[in-house]
Amino acid sequence: MSKNLTTRSEDYSKWYNELVVKADLAENSGVRGCMVIKPYGYAIWEKMQAELDRMFKETGHQNAYFPLFVPKSMFEAEEKNAEGFAKECAVVTHYRLKNDESRPGKLMVDPEAKLEEELIVRPTSEAIIWSTYKGWVQSYRDLPLLINQWANVVRWEMRTRLFLRTAEFLWQEGHTAHATKAEALEESEKMMNVYADFAQNFMAIPVVRGFKTESERFAGADETYCIEALMQDGKALQAGTSHFLGQNFAQAFDVKFANAEGKQEHVWGTSWGVSTRLMGALIMTHSDDQGLVLPPNLAPIQVVIVPIYKTDEQLAQISEAASVLTAKLRKLRITVKFDDRTTQKPGFKFAEWELKGVPVRIAVGPKDLENGTFEVARRDTLSKETVSADGIENYINDLLEQIQNDLFAKALNYRDTHITQVNNFEEFKEVLNGKGGFVSAHWDGTAETEEKIKDLTKATIRCIPLDAVEEAGTCVFTGNPSSKRVLFAKAY
Amino acid sequence: MSKNLTTRSEDYSKWYNELVVKADLAENSGVRGCMVIKPYGYAIWEKMQAELDRMFKETGHQNAYFPLFVPKSMFEAEEKNAEGFAKECAVVTHYRLKNDESRPGKLMVDPEAKLEEELIVRPTSEAIIWSTYKGWVQSYRDLPLLINQWANVVRWEMRTRLFLRTAEFLWQEGHTAHATKAEALEESEKMMNVYADFAQNFMAIPVVRGFKTESERFAGADETYCIEALMQDGKALQAGTSHFLGQNFAQAFDVKFANAEGKQEHVWGTSWGVSTRLMGALIMTHSDDQGLVLPPNLAPIQVVIVPIYKTDEQLAQISEAASVLTAKLRKLRITVKFDDRTTQKPGFKFAEWELKGVPVRIAVGPKDLENGTFEVARRDTLSKETVSADGIENYINDLLEQIQNDLFAKALNYRDTHITQVNNFEEFKEVLNGKGGFVSAHWDGTAETEEKIKDLTKATIRCIPLDAVEEAGTCVFTGNPSSKRVLFAKAY
Repeated sequence: MSKNLTTRSEDYSKWYNELVVKADLAENSGVRGCMVIKPYGYAIWEKMQAELDRMFKETGHQNAYFPLFVPKSMFEAEEKNAEGFAKECAVVTHYRLKNDESRPGKLMVDPEAKLEEELIVRPTSEAIIWSTYKGWVQSYRDLPLLINQWANVVRWEMRTRLFLRTAEFLWQEGHTAHATKAEALEESEKMMNVYADFAQNFMAIPVVRGFKTESERFAGADETYCIEALMQDGKALQAGTSHFLGQNFAQAFDVKFANAEGKQEHVWGTSWGVSTRLMGALIMTHSDDQGLVLPPNLAPIQVVIVPIYKTDEQLAQISEAASVLTAKLRKLRITVKFDDRTTQKPGFKFAEWELKGVPVRIAVGPKDLENGTFEVARRDTLSKETVSADGIENYINDLLEQIQNDLFAKALNYRDTHITQVNNFEEFKEVLNGKGGFVSAHWDGTAETEEKIKDLTKATIRCIPLDAVEEAGTCVFTGNPSSKRVLFAKAY
Repeated sequence: MSKNLTTRSEDYSKWYNELVVKADLAENSGVRGCMVIKPYGYAIWEKMQAELDRMFKETGHQNAYFPLFVPKSMFEAEEKNAEGFAKECAVVTHYRLKNDESRPGKLMVDPEAKLEEELIVRPTSEAIIWSTYKGWVQSYRDLPLLINQWANVVRWEMRTRLFLRTAEFLWQEGHTAHATKAEALEESEKMMNVYADFAQNFMAIPVVRGFKTESERFAGADETYCIEALMQDGKALQAGTSHFLGQNFAQAFDVKFANAEGKQEHVWGTSWGVSTRLMGALIMTHSDDQGLVLPPNLAPIQVVIVPIYKTDEQLAQISEAASVLTAKLRKLRITVKFDDRTTQKPGFKFAEWELKGVPVRIAVGPKDLENGTFEVARRDTLSKETVSADGIENYINDLLEQIQNDLFAKALNYRDTHITQVNNFEEFKEVLNGKGGFVSAHWDGTAETEEKIKDLTKATIRCIPLDAVEEAGTCVFTGNPSSKRVLFAKAY
């Protein structure tokens, strides 16, 4: 297997695009901006889904399903949200095709089947969900509503990239309704923490938790919490957001409840989501010039066994040993593949499984059988060891845990060495255009300054970190007073 | 809780519509023909999904994801399929809204954001998937492709009913590609059998396996296998279909492979799907005038424990006993809910859990604590028994299995006593308009006769059963010769 993968230092962006396709994760489809998620990529997404779904349920949420379409009048109801998404939404205007008389065998939109009211393909579901919640909430006893939806959404992006920015993407969106502001705020913070826990402990991706500035907030939210990750090229990637919606949607859709004293109040809301964009974060956090590197938690195949042989007899003996080993590993719930294809050489197989990021490769030849050993290679470090067959299943089990931890430690170290405090605008630009990463700087708190810095450097405020310490300083751009540092970066 | 459920004998259709809403399964949304699947209904669908997904993977299939939209030219490529779905498809024509200058705060479709080519919201995904498969198949070594997708699809139905016929619905669609006709035929039959196994052994719904006639076939298929269930009102419901597509889509999308001799051939295809329609089948097969009856396999809550008490001290003692019992049941992977709401009386709770179809209800009061017993009630038979606390977890475990089996046996008995052989058209009409169910009759094999019978009686040929025996006879309508009986019924 010839990989021909562009290296990261040659062209990071090209490396990413090639890797997604060559590792069989996804490809562009015949529909502008929409991707096909291939089985290997989808298997990784399924692992993310399963773990997130477990975490949501553990925190008291239930799944439900709401319509794909939002009637235009419903879409308009919350003005800021509508304005925020109006420029990029797919609109259904007709519900039928008919034969095109002028072109035999072709179809055309039937002008007589025009919808009375246009339908927006959901870019997000606050509008349709809050219009439904109106019927579900009468009294404080009906609250909280803690609901999640797994769905596809559409945002008509002009420039798209596989997983990172696609016209259609898959995501989950939580939508909760509460009796009090405090409870809704607690929920939005809780879900940001669920996301951070998931990113760090399951995906091995370190994240910074923080707030968005007003101009970077979700349209229709009063506060947006986020988790921000850092890619190997020094650019940040927003990996998840959790919004405190205040009473904005409750007011727009007239969702009220009678409190314990019988008084009518508007409900408080939150929404929160992560998407197939996380696949992009996963790829760009861990992978290298040889291809994908997958944390064991997310690997569809955790261990691949490759036989090294010359004769059919040798293959038969190796197959027997492999089958014993496979059984032992499966008992420990490790996913194993024995690659016994006779059409490919071991070198080709090694390169293919490297490209696909299988965490552990076990090679076994006649010599190994004689010595009672296996050759065990780690994908992340590309290092090899000879391991005794006796008790190897526990060795592999520990190794997978080790790899998971090492990947996180490595990414954390990269991230931590790429948060740089700067105190003037020269330093700001130097770091941003040099080593990149997060630039920790004082900011005067105005949207105007934020905008100017963005225009001059392409850097945006990724977040006001939750753990930012109070510290007197002056804005890196205007010199006006500031009380805490925020994180700037170029971003995906 | 006042149920006020219309009875089945009063108005079967009304009973169904009310039950779906009152049992919190689904409701109509503000979008014409689209439903909201509520958490309780969605939890049942999740159980179906999990089991089907397991069965698909066990038979070698992998999940993937393809775009929601199909460009018009791609949609047109397979003519019969295009024609079959053209009359009911949602069409995206624009990709942006803008402010409506004449109505402040309102949005309108931006005429400048018209798509060059209209996009069809997928009514089914053969077109988009086969256009993708073209890039995935070069040689016989790339075959078979065994792929499934969990997705939403849209068919602009004019008359909709919750779960049974909705504009948007959720489903899975398998799409496979094979090197030979025999292999594709085997796959389509295999998946029909997977569906039959699932319906009968997991959902406790007996089904007839068979072929569709040419006029009832999926548009674009050479053969359609189906499973047909029978509802309590004597109407049939198509519960799943599996299509042998021949080389139709491979030809339309030019999907060829080099066989072992290096010769180019078109690929053979299948597709197969089941949808949220199965929720309708589930409800109408088992439920009664008291509400939902759920087979234990599909019940989000399998056992509910209701405390009967007067004093707080009694409640405390009962809670302790309930918590011991809950722990024992959970160890056996039984899903238990302890309904300790203080705002509702036991009678209300009994009615609510009956309406929601919880298979087993355990009531416990001070007397039970004294005697070391529990009162165990079955939802399906509405019968009660007093059971010793000692070893009750095994009793409940067995009971759940018993209920699952009994529900199937009951439905099977109903189905078997509602397949009636008739030999002339008078009998045909008499049975159809009397006891209903499947009418087993000879048919001359022509679409013309099929159409005439449908016009006169509203009955369609549900299927040509797989196990139909060769038997000389005469068509029940025309008197022309026929060699086997087919099943007619009115249908959902």
